[in-house]
Amino acid sequence: MALKNKERNLYLSNVAVEKALNIFLERINKNLKNHEKEFISVIDSLGRVSASAVFAKYSSPNYNASAMDGIAVKASTTFFASERNPIQLKINKDFIYVDTGEPIKKPYDAVIMIEDVVEIDEERVEIIKAASPWQHIRPIGEDIVANEMIIPSNHIIRPVDIGALLSGGIYELKVYKKPKVGIIPTGTEIIEPGEKMEDGKIIESNSRVFEGLVKELGGEPNRYKPVPDDYYLLKSTILKAIDENHIVIINAGSSAGTKDYTKKLVDELGEVLVHGIATKPGKPTILGVINEKAVIGIPGYPVSAYFVFDTFVKPLIKKYQGQYMDDSNKVQAVLSKRIVSSLKHKEFVRIKLGRVDEQLIATPLSRGAGVSMSLVRADGVFVIPQNSEGVEAGEKIEVSLLKPLNKINKTIVSIGSHDLIMDLIGNLIHKQNAFYDLSSAHVGSLGGIMALRRREAHIAPIHLLDATTGEYNVSFVKKYLSNLDMALIKGVKRVQGIIIQKGNPKNIYDFEDLLKEEIVFVNRQRGAGTRILLDYELKKRKINPSKIIGYDREMTTHMAVAAAVASGSADAGVGVLSAAKAMDLEFIPIGEEEYDFLVPVKYLDKGMIQLFIKVIKSKEFKEILENMGGYGLEHTGEIIKVK
Amino acid sequence: MALKNKERNLYLSNVAVEKALNIFLERINKNLKNHEKEFISVIDSLGRVSASAVFAKYSSPNYNASAMDGIAVKASTTFFASERNPIQLKINKDFIYVDTGEPIKKPYDAVIMIEDVVEIDEERVEIIKAASPWQHIRPIGEDIVANEMIIPSNHIIRPVDIGALLSGGIYELKVYKKPKVGIIPTGTEIIEPGEKMEDGKIIESNSRVFEGLVKELGGEPNRYKPVPDDYYLLKSTILKAIDENHIVIINAGSSAGTKDYTKKLVDELGEVLVHGIATKPGKPTILGVINEKAVIGIPGYPVSAYFVFDTFVKPLIKKYQGQYMDDSNKVQAVLSKRIVSSLKHKEFVRIKLGRVDEQLIATPLSRGAGVSMSLVRADGVFVIPQNSEGVEAGEKIEVSLLKPLNKINKTIVSIGSHDLIMDLIGNLIHKQNAFYDLSSAHVGSLGGIMALRRREAHIAPIHLLDATTGEYNVSFVKKYLSNLDMALIKGVKRVQGIIIQKGNPKNIYDFEDLLKEEIVFVNRQRGAGTRILLDYELKKRKINPSKIIGYDREMTTHMAVAAAVASGSADAGVGVLSAAKAMDLEFIPIGEEEYDFLVPVKYLDKGMIQLFIKVIKSKEFKEILENMGGYGLEHTGEIIKVK
Repeated sequence: MALKNKERNLYLSNVAVEKALNIFLERINKNLKNHEKEFISVIDSLGRVSASAVFAKYSSPNYNASAMDGIAVKASTTFFASERNPIQLKINKDFIYVDTGEPIKKPYDAVIMIEDVVEIDEERVEIIKAASPWQHIRPIGEDIVANEMIIPSNHIIRPVDIGALLSGGIYELKVYKKPKVGIIPTGTEIIEPGEKMEDGKIIESNSRVFEGLVKELGGEPNRYKPVPDDYYLLKSTILKAIDENHIVIINAGSSAGTKDYTKKLVDELGEVLVHGIATKPGKPTILGVINEKAVIGIPGYPVSAYFVFDTFVKPLIKKYQGQYMDDSNKVQAVLSKRIVSSLKHKEFVRIKLGRVDEQLIATPLSRGAGVSMSLVRADGVFVIPQNSEGVEAGEKIEVSLLKPLNKINKTIVSIGSHDLIMDLIGNLIHKQNAFYDLSSAHVGSLGGIMALRRREAHIAPIHLLDATTGEYNVSFVKKYLSNLDMALIKGVKRVQGIIIQKGNPKNIYDFEDLLKEEIVFVNRQRGAGTRILLDYELKKRKINPSKIIGYDREMTTHMAVAAAVASGSADAGVGVLSAAKAMDLEFIPIGEEEYDFLVPVKYLDKGMIQLFIKVIKSKEFKEILENMGGYGLEHTGEIIKVK
Repeated sequence: MALKNKERNLYLSNVAVEKALNIFLERINKNLKNHEKEFISVIDSLGRVSASAVFAKYSSPNYNASAMDGIAVKASTTFFASERNPIQLKINKDFIYVDTGEPIKKPYDAVIMIEDVVEIDEERVEIIKAASPWQHIRPIGEDIVANEMIIPSNHIIRPVDIGALLSGGIYELKVYKKPKVGIIPTGTEIIEPGEKMEDGKIIESNSRVFEGLVKELGGEPNRYKPVPDDYYLLKSTILKAIDENHIVIINAGSSAGTKDYTKKLVDELGEVLVHGIATKPGKPTILGVINEKAVIGIPGYPVSAYFVFDTFVKPLIKKYQGQYMDDSNKVQAVLSKRIVSSLKHKEFVRIKLGRVDEQLIATPLSRGAGVSMSLVRADGVFVIPQNSEGVEAGEKIEVSLLKPLNKINKTIVSIGSHDLIMDLIGNLIHKQNAFYDLSSAHVGSLGGIMALRRREAHIAPIHLLDATTGEYNVSFVKKYLSNLDMALIKGVKRVQGIIIQKGNPKNIYDFEDLLKEEIVFVNRQRGAGTRILLDYELKKRKINPSKIIGYDREMTTHMAVAAAVASGSADAGVGVLSAAKAMDLEFIPIGEEEYDFLVPVKYLDKGMIQLFIKVIKSKEFKEILENMGGYGLEHTGEIIKVK
C-alpha cells in the first residue's frame, strides 16, 4: 500500500478516440489481412461469416418436378377438353400418376391436379379442362440455378442461408476463423465467485462480460485465471495469451500507478502505441502490439471496461471476420436533463429512454464509471464529442440503441419517489407480460411531479404531506399541475422512521439524539418526500439541521440509506420500515404515510397503465408485501381523480 | 407411385391462422405452465431467460472504497488548507496512502487525489486544498445495494447482466430449461448431403433451417435421421421424439396424399387439433398433441416450412421461455407492384426493400412456395390478411423486417436486365465493404427504365438496340426518361447467341431451325433486351414467332434459359455466351451488344454508386470476367451523361 507519488507515472497522453483507433488498426493491418480462413460444414455454419462468395453446385430443383399431386400428361392431348367434351386418358399411354416433387419426363409436359381428375377405372381417367404446357411443373432451377450466387463474401450465415446452400448442393463453405480473444483479469484485490468476500475484495466480473460480448460478436473467448499484481506472473500469462490468441485483453492495471504493470510489459514485449485516450470513462487505456497481435489494456471500472471494449475490441473482432462497425442504429430523442461535459474528452452517457406522448425522452443515467447497473438499465448511449461542453435540456440528441425500440415503446416510465415496491412491481409486470417493462428513476416526489409536468414520465410515485391539512399528495398535485387532468392510483400506506444499527449501540431514541457529536447521519436528496418529512419533524422540534453531522450526505434510495447504516459509515438515517428489515437493522417509527402513483388521466386507459393497476391489485403483490411487512394495502389500486 | 384419387383425403379444413394458434396454445397450456426450470451458473447464462427476479446478495462496492489513487484523510483536518495556508499531514496519523478500490475506514472519510498531494518526505505530505467529506469515496452500494433487483423474471440475459449479477454476489440463477424441439425429416425422395444426386431426389434442407431457427430462439434442436414414407418407421420415430422433446416437428407428409402418414399417426397416438390452415403458403399444416406435447406437421416446400415454423413453432418456443411474440419490428413502405391475393387465406409475401429518394420501396419477390432463395433475398415480409383481395401499386404497406433497416438503407437497388455479372458485382461490393449490398431484380431492360421512372431503383442494367441507328441504350433513355438527368455507366460488351445442347444433337444452326417441329424453344420474358433482340432477328428473317414451339415459355434469367436447355426440357434458347459456358453448352453467336448501367445523375455522387463504379473498374472484376470469357471491357466504368 506504500504508493508514493514519485513511483508513479502520473502523465497519460490524451489521444482522440478516432485517432487512437486508426493508429491501432493500421499497425495490426497485416495480421488482420493474413487472418486464417477454414472450411466448415454448412450444417454447422450458423452465425459464421463467409470468406468468399458461394455459388450453387446444382440447380434446385435439379429436374422438372411436379408441383402438385396429380397426373402428368402431354398438354397437346388435352387441348380440346371441356365440360361438354370430356377427354378420356389411358394410364402409361396418355398419363401417369405423380406426387408432388416427382420428376416429369418426356413425353409429359404438364400436370393436372388430382382434384380435377375423374377416375373411371384402374386404367382410365377423364378430364374436362385443357392443360396448358408446363402447368403445375416446377422447372429446373426454379429456386436456384446452378452457378448462381447464393451468398456473397462477408455474409453472416442465417438459417435460411443454410437451407438455400444445401439445396444448391453446397455442403462445405469457407468462413473466417473465429478470432480468439484472450482475456486476462488482473489485480490482487479481485476474487472469483465463491471465494470469501471481505473488505477490499471485489468479485471479478469484467472478464465474464467480455466473454459474453466476444461470443455475441462471433469470436472465441479464452479467459485466463486471474493474475495478481505481480510483474513476472503477468508477464508469463501475457506471453502465453499472445501465443494462443489473435487479440489479448488485459483488464485493469492499465493506468499509471506503481502496480500497473501492463504498460511496462507491453513496452518490454512489444510496443505501446497509445497510453491514455480522450474518453470518459476509459481514459487509462493502453493500445499495443506484441508479435503483430493486438493487446488492449482496459481499465477496471465496469463501465470503463465496457466502453473501451466497445470502442477498440469490438471493431477488431468484426474486422477479423470481414465485418465493419455499424453505428447507425440511432434514434432521435429529447434530452430531459442538462448534461455538462468537458472539452478534454469524448464522453459516453448511458441513457434511459421513454416514449411519452409520442416523444422519445432521453434521461441520463448515473455517469459513474463504477456503476455497472447503469449498463443494465440503459436503453441507449449518447456520445458527447470531445469538442462539446455538453447539451441543454430540451435539445434533440441522437441515441445509439442498446434495446429494440419496440421494447422501449412498451416501457412505463416512472419518475419520482423511491420505494422497494417499485422493483417488485417492475418484476411482476415483466412476469405477466415480458413485452412490458417498468423503468423507475428516483428523484423524489417533487421531482416526479415536475417530470410529469414536463411530460417526461407516465407515472410518478409520490408521498407528500401537506403539513397544514395532514392530507397526503392531493394538495401538491393541485398546486403544481393545476392545468392537467390528473389521477392518483392509490398505492400503499407505509411506515417511515429512523433507521439505526442493530442493538442501537449509539443509543438513539429520537430526533434530538441526532445532534450528539458522535452520531453520523445520512440523508436523502432534496425533493425526496422522506427528506421533507424529516425537515417537518425537525422543524416541529426546532432542531437546526446544519447541526446534524451528515445532514448533507445525500442518498437517492431508502436502501442506500439502510446500506450506509448497515456498513457503519452512518449511525442513523430516515427511511421506510421495509428497508430497515431488508438490511436487518432497527427502526424507530415516526408515522404512517401514503405512497401513491400520480398519473395523467389520459394514460389510465393505456394497456401499460392497466397492467400496472392489475399488478398492484394482484394477490401475488399483496402476499409479497405482507411478507415484507410495513405496508398497508387497504386502498391499493383505487383511482382518485384530482381536480 | 400408384396414387389414386380414392385413396386420398382431398379435403383439408381451412382454419384461420389466429384461431388455429389459439386452439393449439390453449390445448398445451398445462404442459407449458409446468415447464421445468433449472439453476445454472451465472457465468454460463448468456442468452438464457431468468425464471424469477434476481436480487443482489451483496452491495457493490461492499465497503466504502477509494475512487482514486491518493491519500485517505479526515476531512475535518483539511478544512483550512489553501494555497496560502498549506497543511502538513503525518502518515498513519493524519493520512494513509490508498489505491483505487481500497477500503476507506474510520477515522478517514475523504480521499485526496495523488496529483494534489506534495510529498515532503517519507512521513509527511502537504496539501493546499480542503477535502470535502466523502469526496472521491465510492460509498457502499454506489453500484448495487444488497437486496436490490438486478434483473426481473423473463429477462434474456446479456453480457452486462452477467457483470452486474456477479458484482451483486449472485453466482447461480434460475432459468427456464431450454425447450427441446424434435425435428423429424420424412420422405422417400429426400437425400442427405453427400448422397448421390439423381432425378426425383432432393437434398434435405428444411430440418437444418429449423435447427438454426430453434437455436436462435434459445431452444435445443434435436434432429432425427430422415424417415422414409413408411408408416411403422415414422410411428416409432414420433414416439421416440415425443419422449425426448417438448415439441415435435414432422416435416413433410402433412398433406392429404396416400403417403402422408402424419395426420393418421397423430390421430392414432394423440389428437389432431387442426388439419389445414387458411394461409399461403402453408395450408397443409397439422397441429396436434401427443402425451400433452405439441406436434406440428409442416409441409415440405421450404417457404411453407419457414412460415409455418414462424407462425406456430416460434411462439411456442418463446412461451416455453416466458417470452411473447414480438410483431412490432415493422416499417412503412410503398408497394411497387400490384399484389393480388385470395380471400380464402392469409398470405405471407416476401419483400425486397430499397431506400430510393428517401422513400422505402417494397417489391414483392417470387411467391412460389418452393423458392428458398426468396427467403435468402427477402428484407421483410408483408402479410395480406385473409379478407383482402390484394393491394394496389403505390399503396403504403407495413413490412415486418427480416434485416436491420440500416443495412437496407445501404443497399443499391438494381432493377433491369439480367447478366451473370450482377452476382459478381454484388459479391465484390459486399467484399469491399460489408455495409453495402447490391439487390438485383430481373425484369428486363425496359422494366428497369420504368422502375427508374417510378423512382423504385437506383440503377438499371440495360441493353437495348435501336434498330434504326444500330446504337445501344441512349435513344431509349431519351425517349422514356426525357425529363430526368440521366447517366450511363458503361458496362460490358457481351456476346448474345442461340444456346444449344452439347454436340448439337438437333442440328440447329440458325433461327430458321427453330421452326422445326421437333425443336422446343425456351424464351425470355417480355421487356427483356434479349427477347427484343430475338424478335428483331426473327423479324429481319420474316419468321412468325407463334410458329416456334416454346416461344411462350418465359424465363427471367440467362441462367434459367441455359438450365432448361441443359436439362433437355428445351432444345434452344437465346442468351449470353457466359451462361452457355457456365452450363457447358454450345453457342451460336448472333452479335455483340452493350450492357450498361443507367443511373440518375443525382445518384452519381452517392457513396454506394461510387463503390459500384470502383468495383466494376477494379482489377479483380476484370480478371474474373476475362476468365469467364464473352465480355468486352474497354469502356467499363466510363460515364456518359444522356440529354
